[in-house]
Amino acid sequence: MPTINEIKLKSIGYVRRASKQENVKDRSLVSEITIRKGLTKALEGIEEFSHVFVLFYMHQVSAKDKKALKVHPRGRMDLPLVGLFATRTPLRPNPVGLAVVELLKRKENVLVVQGLDAFDGTPVLDLKPYDNWDAVVNIRIPEWRKKLEVEAASKKD
Amino acid sequence: MPTINEIKLKSIGYVRRASKQENVKDRSLVSEITIRKGLTKALEGIEEFSHVFVLFYMHQVSAKDKKALKVHPRGRMDLPLVGLFATRTPLRPNPVGLAVVELLKRKENVLVVQGLDAFDGTPVLDLKPYDNWDAVVNIRIPEWRKKLEVEAASKKD
Repeated sequence: MPTINEIKLKSIGYVRRASKQENVKDRSLVSEITIRKGLTKALEGIEEFSHVFVLFYMHQVSAKDKKALKVHPRGRMDLPLVGLFATRTPLRPNPVGLAVVELLKRKENVLVVQGLDAFDGTPVLDLKPYDNWDAVVNIRIPEWRKKLEVEAASKKD
Repeated sequence: MPTINEIKLKSIGYVRRASKQENVKDRSLVSEITIRKGLTKALEGIEEFSHVFVLFYMHQVSAKDKKALKVHPRGRMDLPLVGLFATRTPLRPNPVGLAVVELLKRKENVLVVQGLDAFDGTPVLDLKPYDNWDAVVNIRIPEWRKKLEVEAASKKD
Protein backbone atom coordinates (compact mmCIF):
# COMPACT_ATOMS: atom_id res chain seq x y z
CA MET A 1 0.00 0.00 0.00
CA PRO A 2 1.58 3.30 -1.03
CA THR A 3 1.91 6.16 1.42
CA ILE A 4 0.97 9.58 0.15
CA ASN A 5 3.61 11.89 1.60
CA GLU A 6 2.63 14.93 -0.35
CA ILE A 7 -0.53 16.14 1.31
CA LYS A 8 0.03 19.84 1.75
CA LEU A 9 -2.32 22.04 3.73
CA LYS A 10 -2.24 25.70 4.62
CA SER A 11 -3.62 27.57 7.59
CA ILE A 12 -6.89 29.45 7.17
CA GLY A 13 -6.35 31.39 10.39
CA TYR A 14 -5.06 31.29 13.94
CA VAL A 15 -6.17 30.73 17.51
CA ARG A 16 -5.89 33.73 19.80
CA ARG A 17 -6.11 33.32 23.55
CA ALA A 18 -6.13 35.89 26.34
CA SER A 19 -2.75 34.63 27.48
CA LYS A 20 -0.12 32.18 26.30
CA GLN A 21 -0.18 30.66 29.77
CA GLU A 22 -3.84 29.64 29.80
CA ASN A 23 -4.69 26.07 30.65
CA VAL A 24 -6.03 25.04 27.25
CA LYS A 25 -7.61 21.92 28.75
CA ASP A 26 -10.06 24.13 30.68
CA ARG A 27 -13.06 23.91 28.37
CA SER A 28 -14.82 26.80 30.10
CA LEU A 29 -12.32 29.29 28.68
CA VAL A 30 -13.14 31.47 25.71
CA SER A 31 -10.77 31.99 22.81
CA GLU A 32 -10.86 33.58 19.39
CA ILE A 33 -10.21 32.25 15.94
CA THR A 34 -9.05 34.88 13.49
CA ILE A 35 -9.61 33.79 9.92
CA ARG A 36 -7.69 35.33 7.00
CA LYS A 37 -9.50 38.44 5.81
CA GLY A 38 -9.75 37.05 2.27
CA LEU A 39 -11.95 34.24 3.62
CA THR A 40 -14.44 36.41 5.54
CA LYS A 41 -17.25 35.73 3.05
CA ALA A 42 -16.71 31.98 3.53
CA LEU A 43 -17.84 32.42 7.16
CA GLU A 44 -21.25 33.89 6.34
CA GLY A 45 -24.00 31.93 8.00
CA ILE A 46 -21.72 29.90 10.26
CA GLU A 47 -23.12 31.90 13.19
CA GLU A 48 -26.46 30.16 12.68
CA PHE A 49 -24.86 27.03 14.09
CA SER A 50 -24.40 26.92 17.86
CA HIS A 51 -21.47 24.51 17.59
CA VAL A 52 -18.69 23.93 15.10
CA PHE A 53 -15.81 21.53 14.61
CA VAL A 54 -12.39 23.14 14.58
CA LEU A 55 -9.54 21.28 12.91
CA PHE A 56 -6.15 22.64 13.85
CA TYR A 57 -2.49 21.89 13.36
CA MET A 58 -0.71 21.13 16.62
CA HIS A 59 2.39 23.07 15.61
CA GLN A 60 4.08 22.66 18.97
CA VAL A 61 4.53 18.96 18.23
CA SER A 62 7.70 18.67 16.22
CA ALA A 63 8.37 16.00 13.61
CA LYS A 64 11.19 14.70 15.76
CA ASP A 65 9.05 14.20 18.88
CA LYS A 66 8.98 10.52 19.63
CA LYS A 67 5.66 9.01 18.66
CA ALA A 68 5.17 5.76 20.56
CA LEU A 69 2.57 3.48 19.00
CA LYS A 70 1.07 2.81 22.44
CA VAL A 71 0.61 5.33 25.21
CA HIS A 72 -0.85 5.70 28.67
CA PRO A 73 -3.74 8.17 28.18
CA ARG A 74 -2.62 11.63 29.39
CA GLY A 75 0.64 10.07 30.55
CA ARG A 76 -1.15 8.51 33.53
CA MET A 77 0.45 5.28 34.58
CA ASP A 78 -2.74 4.20 36.36
CA LEU A 79 -4.50 4.00 33.00
CA PRO A 80 -3.81 1.12 30.60
CA LEU A 81 -1.32 1.26 27.75
CA VAL A 82 -3.39 1.58 24.57
CA GLY A 83 -2.81 2.34 20.91
CA LEU A 84 -2.39 6.04 20.18
CA PHE A 85 -5.43 6.02 17.89
CA ALA A 86 -7.55 5.02 20.90
CA THR A 87 -6.52 8.33 22.51
CA ARG A 88 -6.42 12.02 21.68
CA THR A 89 -2.68 12.36 22.31
CA PRO A 90 -1.06 15.12 20.21
CA LEU A 91 1.82 12.73 19.51
CA ARG A 92 0.22 11.11 16.44
CA PRO A 93 1.39 10.52 12.85
CA ASN A 94 -0.46 13.64 11.71
CA PRO A 95 -0.66 16.20 14.53
CA VAL A 96 -4.15 17.44 13.64
CA GLY A 97 -6.38 18.38 16.54
CA LEU A 98 -10.16 18.28 16.52
CA ALA A 99 -12.49 20.08 18.91
CA VAL A 100 -16.22 20.61 19.11
CA VAL A 101 -16.63 24.20 20.28
CA GLU A 102 -19.54 26.46 21.08
CA LEU A 103 -19.65 29.39 18.71
CA LEU A 104 -20.54 32.38 20.87
CA LYS A 105 -20.23 35.12 18.30
CA ARG A 106 -18.84 36.09 14.91
CA LYS A 107 -17.43 39.54 14.31
CA GLU A 108 -16.53 39.63 10.61
CA ASN A 109 -13.49 37.33 10.31
CA VAL A 110 -13.21 36.60 14.03
CA LEU A 111 -15.04 33.78 15.79
CA VAL A 112 -15.42 33.81 19.56
CA VAL A 113 -15.59 30.23 20.80
CA GLN A 114 -15.75 28.29 24.02
CA GLY A 115 -14.10 24.91 24.59
CA LEU A 116 -11.18 25.02 22.15
CA ASP A 117 -8.21 23.10 23.59
CA ALA A 118 -5.57 24.71 21.37
CA PHE A 119 -2.69 26.99 22.29
CA ASP A 120 -2.40 30.65 21.39
CA GLY A 121 -1.03 30.91 17.85
CA THR A 122 -2.20 27.49 16.70
CA PRO A 123 -2.83 27.37 12.92
CA VAL A 124 -6.44 26.50 12.07
CA LEU A 125 -7.04 24.19 9.10
CA ASP A 126 -10.81 24.01 8.79
CA LEU A 127 -14.16 24.81 10.36
CA LYS A 128 -17.21 22.61 9.88
CA PRO A 129 -20.75 23.05 11.15
CA TYR A 130 -21.83 20.61 13.84
CA ASP A 131 -25.20 19.06 13.08
CA ASN A 132 -27.50 16.41 14.50
CA TRP A 133 -25.73 13.62 12.60
CA ASP A 134 -22.60 14.39 14.61
CA ALA A 135 -24.30 13.91 17.98
CA VAL A 136 -24.29 10.20 18.79
CA VAL A 137 -25.89 9.62 22.14
CA ASN A 138 -25.67 5.88 22.65
CA ILE A 139 -21.98 5.23 22.57
CA ARG A 140 -19.74 2.66 24.14
CA ILE A 141 -16.40 3.74 25.59
CA PRO A 142 -13.75 1.84 27.55
CA GLU A 143 -13.58 1.80 31.35
CA TRP A 144 -10.46 3.98 31.49
CA ARG A 145 -12.21 6.67 29.48
CA LYS A 146 -15.29 6.54 31.76
CA LYS A 147 -12.97 7.07 34.71
CA LEU A 148 -11.57 10.25 33.14
CA GLU A 149 -15.06 11.58 32.42
CA VAL A 150 -16.20 10.92 35.99
CA GLU A 151 -13.11 12.72 37.31
CA ALA A 152 -13.73 15.73 35.05
CA ALA A 153 -17.38 15.92 36.12
CA SER A 154 -16.48 15.83 39.80
CA LYS A 155 -14.01 18.70 39.34
CA LYS A 156 -16.82 20.83 37.93
CA ASP A 157 -18.88 20.52 41.10
CA MET B 1 -1.21 37.46 9.64
CA PRO B 2 1.19 34.98 8.05
CA THR B 3 -0.12 31.93 6.23
CA ILE B 4 1.63 28.68 6.98
CA ASN B 5 1.88 26.95 3.63
CA GLU B 6 4.12 24.18 4.74
CA ILE B 7 1.86 21.87 6.67
CA LYS B 8 2.68 18.43 5.33
CA LEU B 9 0.69 15.37 6.22
CA LYS B 10 0.91 11.76 5.12
CA SER B 11 -1.71 9.09 4.82
CA ILE B 12 -1.95 6.50 7.58
CA GLY B 13 -4.12 4.22 5.43
CA TYR B 14 -6.89 4.01 2.87
CA VAL B 15 -10.63 3.59 2.53
CA ARG B 16 -11.77 0.41 0.82
CA ARG B 17 -15.33 0.05 -0.43
CA ALA B 18 -17.13 -2.89 -2.00
CA SER B 19 -17.32 -0.97 -5.26
CA LYS B 20 -16.02 2.27 -6.70
CA GLN B 21 -19.58 3.06 -7.76
CA GLU B 22 -21.15 3.02 -4.31
CA ASN B 23 -23.17 6.01 -3.23
CA VAL B 24 -20.87 7.24 -0.48
CA LYS B 25 -23.61 9.48 0.91
CA ASP B 26 -25.59 6.38 1.92
CA ARG B 27 -24.63 6.18 5.59
CA SER B 28 -26.01 2.66 5.94
CA LEU B 29 -23.19 1.25 3.81
CA VAL B 30 -20.22 -0.50 5.34
CA SER B 31 -16.65 0.19 4.29
CA GLU B 32 -13.18 -0.72 5.46
CA ILE B 33 -10.23 1.34 6.52
CA THR B 34 -6.90 -0.38 5.98
CA ILE B 35 -4.18 1.15 8.11
CA ARG B 36 -0.48 0.75 7.29
CA LYS B 37 0.82 -2.46 8.83
CA GLY B 38 3.53 -0.57 10.73
CA LEU B 39 0.79 1.22 12.67
CA THR B 40 -1.21 -1.86 13.74
CA LYS B 41 -0.14 -1.54 17.39
CA ALA B 42 -1.41 2.06 17.38
CA LEU B 43 -4.94 0.69 16.86
CA GLU B 44 -4.98 -1.50 19.98
CA GLY B 45 -7.96 -0.69 22.15
CA ILE B 46 -9.75 1.46 19.56
CA GLU B 47 -12.33 -1.35 19.26
CA GLU B 48 -13.51 -0.54 22.78
CA PHE B 49 -15.07 2.60 21.34
CA SER B 50 -18.32 2.15 19.44
CA HIS B 51 -17.72 5.28 17.35
CA VAL B 52 -14.67 7.04 15.98
CA PHE B 53 -13.90 10.17 14.01
CA VAL B 54 -12.24 9.58 10.67
CA LEU B 55 -10.25 12.43 9.12
CA PHE B 56 -9.54 11.89 5.46
CA TYR B 57 -8.04 13.69 2.51
CA MET B 58 -10.57 14.32 -0.26
CA HIS B 59 -8.04 13.52 -2.98
CA GLN B 60 -10.58 13.77 -5.78
CA VAL B 61 -10.78 17.52 -5.20
CA SER B 62 -7.94 19.01 -7.17
CA ALA B 63 -6.11 22.19 -6.23
CA LYS B 64 -7.39 23.82 -9.39
CA ASP B 65 -11.07 23.16 -8.65
CA LYS B 66 -12.74 26.48 -8.20
CA LYS B 67 -13.48 27.15 -4.56
CA ALA B 68 -16.24 29.71 -4.30
CA LEU B 69 -16.39 31.45 -0.94
CA LYS B 70 -20.18 31.04 -0.86
CA VAL B 71 -22.14 28.03 -2.02
CA HIS B 72 -25.65 26.65 -2.17
CA PRO B 73 -25.53 23.61 0.16
CA ARG B 74 -25.28 20.45 -1.96
CA GLY B 75 -25.61 22.59 -5.06
CA ARG B 76 -29.33 23.03 -4.39
CA MET B 77 -30.59 26.34 -5.64
CA ASP B 78 -33.61 26.14 -3.31
CA LEU B 79 -31.27 26.46 -0.35
CA PRO B 80 -29.66 29.81 0.52
CA LEU B 81 -26.19 30.88 -0.57
CA VAL B 82 -23.98 30.59 2.51
CA GLY B 83 -20.28 30.69 3.32
CA LEU B 84 -18.48 27.44 2.56
CA PHE B 85 -17.49 27.06 6.22
CA ALA B 86 -21.20 26.87 7.09
CA THR B 87 -21.38 23.73 4.91
CA ARG B 88 -19.59 20.42 4.47
CA THR B 89 -18.75 21.02 0.82
CA PRO B 90 -15.56 19.23 -0.29
CA LEU B 91 -14.57 22.41 -2.15
CA ARG B 92 -12.82 24.06 0.81
CA PRO B 93 -9.37 25.59 1.31
CA ASN B 94 -8.12 22.34 2.87
CA PRO B 95 -10.03 19.36 1.46
CA VAL B 96 -10.09 17.40 4.69
CA GLY B 97 -13.22 15.36 5.36
CA LEU B 98 -14.54 14.43 8.78
CA ALA B 99 -17.00 11.66 9.56
CA VAL B 100 -18.33 10.10 12.74
CA VAL B 101 -18.54 6.39 11.98
CA GLU B 102 -19.65 3.33 13.86
CA LEU B 103 -16.75 0.96 14.40
CA LEU B 104 -18.19 -2.50 13.77
CA LYS B 105 -15.03 -4.54 14.03
CA ARG B 106 -11.25 -4.45 13.99
CA LYS B 107 -9.27 -7.21 12.33
CA GLU B 108 -5.61 -6.39 12.99
CA ASN B 109 -4.91 -3.33 10.79
CA VAL B 110 -8.35 -3.24 9.18
CA LEU B 111 -11.34 -1.40 10.63
CA VAL B 112 -14.84 -2.23 9.44
CA VAL B 113 -16.98 0.89 9.74
CA GLN B 114 -20.47 2.11 8.94
CA GLY B 115 -21.32 5.63 7.84
CA LEU B 116 -18.10 6.77 6.19
CA ASP B 117 -18.86 9.13 3.30
CA ALA B 118 -15.53 8.74 1.53
CA PHE B 119 -14.73 7.21 -1.84
CA ASP B 120 -12.83 3.99 -2.40
CA GLY B 121 -9.11 4.77 -2.25
CA THR B 122 -9.42 7.89 -0.11
CA PRO B 123 -6.28 8.50 1.99
CA VAL B 124 -6.99 8.49 5.73
CA LEU B 125 -5.17 11.05 7.89
CA ASP B 126 -6.25 10.26 11.43
CA LEU B 127 -8.61 8.29 13.66
CA LYS B 128 -9.83 9.63 16.99
CA PRO B 129 -12.08 8.00 19.56
CA TYR B 130 -15.54 9.54 19.90
CA ASP B 131 -16.45 10.22 23.52
CA ASN B 132 -19.26 11.83 25.49
CA TRP B 133 -17.70 15.30 25.18
CA ASP B 134 -18.21 15.05 21.42
CA ALA B 135 -21.95 14.43 21.67
CA VAL B 136 -23.68 17.79 22.00
CA VAL B 137 -27.41 17.31 22.20
CA ASN B 138 -28.82 20.81 22.49
CA ILE B 139 -27.63 22.44 19.32
CA ARG B 140 -28.96 25.22 17.15
CA ILE B 141 -28.82 24.82 13.36
CA PRO B 142 -30.17 26.99 10.54
CA GLU B 143 -33.54 26.38 8.86
CA TRP B 144 -31.97 25.16 5.61
CA ARG B 145 -30.05 22.50 7.51
CA LYS B 146 -33.19 21.36 9.38
CA LYS B 147 -34.90 20.95 6.01
CA LEU B 148 -32.12 18.61 4.82
CA GLU B 149 -32.34 16.55 8.00
CA VAL B 150 -36.12 16.21 7.70
CA GLU B 151 -35.75 15.10 4.08
CA ALA B 152 -33.10 12.52 5.00
CA ALA B 153 -35.27 11.15 7.81
CA SER B 154 -38.31 10.82 5.54
CA LYS B 155 -36.24 8.84 3.01
CA LYS B 156 -35.39 6.33 5.69
CA ASP B 157 -39.02 5.50 6.40
